[in-house]
Amino acid sequence: MALIVQKYGGTSMGSPERIKNVAKRVARWQAQGNQVVVVVSAMSGETNRLIGLAKEIQASPDPRELDVMVSTGEQVTIALLAMALKGIGVDAKSYTGAQVKILTDSAHTKARILAIEESNIRADLDSGKVIIVAGFQGVDENGDVTTLGRGGSDTTGVALAAALKADECQIYTDVDGVYTTDPRIVPEARKLERITFEEMLEMASLGSKVLQIRSVEFAGKYKVKLRVLSSFEEEGKETNGTLITLEEDSTMEQPIISGIAFNRDEAKLTVLGVPDKPGIAYQILGPISEANIDVDMIIQNVGHDGTTDFSFTVNRSEYARAKKILEESVQKHVGARAIMGDEKICKVSAVGVGMRSHPGVASQMFRTLAEEGINIQMISTSEIKISVVVDEKYLELAVRVLHKTFGLDQ
Amino acid sequence: MALIVQKYGGTSMGSPERIKNVAKRVARWQAQGNQVVVVVSAMSGETNRLIGLAKEIQASPDPRELDVMVSTGEQVTIALLAMALKGIGVDAKSYTGAQVKILTDSAHTKARILAIEESNIRADLDSGKVIIVAGFQGVDENGDVTTLGRGGSDTTGVALAAALKADECQIYTDVDGVYTTDPRIVPEARKLERITFEEMLEMASLGSKVLQIRSVEFAGKYKVKLRVLSSFEEEGKETNGTLITLEEDSTMEQPIISGIAFNRDEAKLTVLGVPDKPGIAYQILGPISEANIDVDMIIQNVGHDGTTDFSFTVNRSEYARAKKILEESVQKHVGARAIMGDEKICKVSAVGVGMRSHPGVASQMFRTLAEEGINIQMISTSEIKISVVVDEKYLELAVRVLHKTFGLDQ
Repeated sequence: MALIVQKYGGTSMGSPERIKNVAKRVARWQAQGNQVVVVVSAMSGETNRLIGLAKEIQASPDPRELDVMVSTGEQVTIALLAMALKGIGVDAKSYTGAQVKILTDSAHTKARILAIEESNIRADLDSGKVIIVAGFQGVDENGDVTTLGRGGSDTTGVALAAALKADECQIYTDVDGVYTTDPRIVPEARKLERITFEEMLEMASLGSKVLQIRSVEFAGKYKVKLRVLSSFEEEGKETNGTLITLEEDSTMEQPIISGIAFNRDEAKLTVLGVPDKPGIAYQILGPISEANIDVDMIIQNVGHDGTTDFSFTVNRSEYARAKKILEESVQKHVGARAIMGDEKICKVSAVGVGMRSHPGVASQMFRTLAEEGINIQMISTSEIKISVVVDEKYLELAVRVLHKTFGLDQ
Repeated sequence: MALIVQKYGGTSMGSPERIKNVAKRVARWQAQGNQVVVVVSAMSGETNRLIGLAKEIQASPDPRELDVMVSTGEQVTIALLAMALKGIGVDAKSYTGAQVKILTDSAHTKARILAIEESNIRADLDSGKVIIVAGFQGVDENGDVTTLGRGGSDTTGVALAAALKADECQIYTDVDGVYTTDPRIVPEARKLERITFEEMLEMASLGSKVLQIRSVEFAGKYKVKLRVLSSFEEEGKETNGTLITLEEDSTMEQPIISGIAFNRDEAKLTVLGVPDKPGIAYQILGPISEANIDVDMIIQNVGHDGTTDFSFTVNRSEYARAKKILEESVQKHVGARAIMGDEKICKVSAVGVGMRSHPGVASQMFRTLAEEGINIQMISTSEIKISVVVDEKYLELAVRVLHKTFGLDQ
């Protein structure tokens, strides 16, 4: 008997009809002899509706109270799914985050899970019930309701799977797996049978919005077998989605590159002519971090004449705020010559564990872009990924030619 | 420094604008040096919306899950009111029923309060916060969410006032107090300055829907000073509403009758020719009670020829079901001659503690109705009330002439 944790997102829970379909799918998994724990999101649109209501009351809603309110979205769907299961004769019981209890820290609207009490769930599972848990929410040590931030239901699913030592955590979405790149840009994109956690992390953080990045980190850390599946496939026509594994698959020919990821929501900032001395990176990025602005790529080249240029990218929506901080608090303080920025950029990345053993990947990537006349503005690399920043207008072209050059079309 | 519990219903919480108005009112009470605990209902319409959603999933929704779901209505409004107060600079904190904790039995959708843990609320009050508590909901000893049934927010308010030994429990509604009768039927109806708990109980159970009857019982039992007020009166133009007191007011001339109540949602059933022997009432009403049908008036007259007729009234929506039970399970069993029923009736009652010392009230009431040609079908009396069942078509006329004959117009 296997223990399966399934997570269904807001689109899958979007209407009574869809909830009934989820119930049927859950019932099938249980009928096949599995114990099933289901994690659900709020009905699509509900979280935004609640936040909108809050903002009509208070322009910047109190975080504690916002969590009290927004957590009701999942509290509604757990009850509805339990009813749907009971309606087809499957015993089921809903749990809010507090009822589980999913203990988090007190960072309202972006709390982190500290511990999960799993004994009650396990007892209910052993008595034959399907367990339905509200995603995205928890409770802190004061008994205050917390939420994990957007996409937190994935994290709830993986954390529960880890706590229960589940055999598999299945993330049901509106796509049927992880693709080599976005099929809307490259119609030849293929679904991957499997992908490593490391690759998935690089893909997710780079804009393949299939899974929330924290849930993938969590799954890797706790060795949870994670699978991405479609909740819209008909009975009897289900595919296996994409399995996210801990180990590279040594039994098959390893592709060099698993996918081409991209992100068009970035903007770059450069601090020109910074004195090339210890502590300068912290002096530049400290004020940015204090303003709660996430930084993605960071690049500093070797200096000359005792100065260097320091560049980084931020989410485009934070661009104006970050630029202002650099101009007002950083430029003078570090003695920089000027601040430059560009909102019209994008990031394109080739990701694959196979590049570890194939040193020629970077040069093949740069040559391919050069042949298309695409100028590379920034380069950043990791063990399993090469990212370049290029002019936004080249995004589709760059993704297409890289997808082809690395043989992902076949 | 007084401790005030205020309860606001769904209409008062019906929109962001109204919630802001409630916040202003709460802030004024606090600014006058009071500690304030606020109990709120869900936004008007929300509970019905949620129940409708549940019924789309399961025709007869699972009670435990329905409570999980429906309780979210108040969880949203507590957060919104806390935000509204913070928005105008008043420190506030929301509590769900489980967070308080309001311990109830496990009778989902109609739970009863067993105990209230008030230490956390008191500590927060003492630190200067306004406390906002979700009405209508609690938690049982298993940690399952329960609801108190329709109108349960009034009960939450009174129970909290009792637990906190509050100086006053104020119920804000869309009317400005308790009237001698419904002003829509008798335009001369007057607002009562005060009314006793006993009278209020009779008025409430007879159809003056100002307060939930359980909350009035609760208030009487725990000696909570209860006041009904309007939440729509403008600042500076507030009236004192109606105070519901434990004692009759001995300092003023006591009116004989305080009000004329009525209920048009009743239906009567008669079991004809029942053997006049012990246990017969139980044999008739036992199956009705087991079917969870509430019985209001019960009348059995002296028998003759060894048989008697047994009549009772039920809510009109239960009429068909009750009649079927009598016909299928009771008639043969008790050896009754026939089952009769009438859906087109109403109940009109004169209520007043003054009638205790004025024996002529009943005869005055019957004469007045007779003068108008209104036939009385059933009569039932208590210490402070006389109720008659008459044909539904006479409701307005009966209420008007009784209101006048007892001098309530002046």
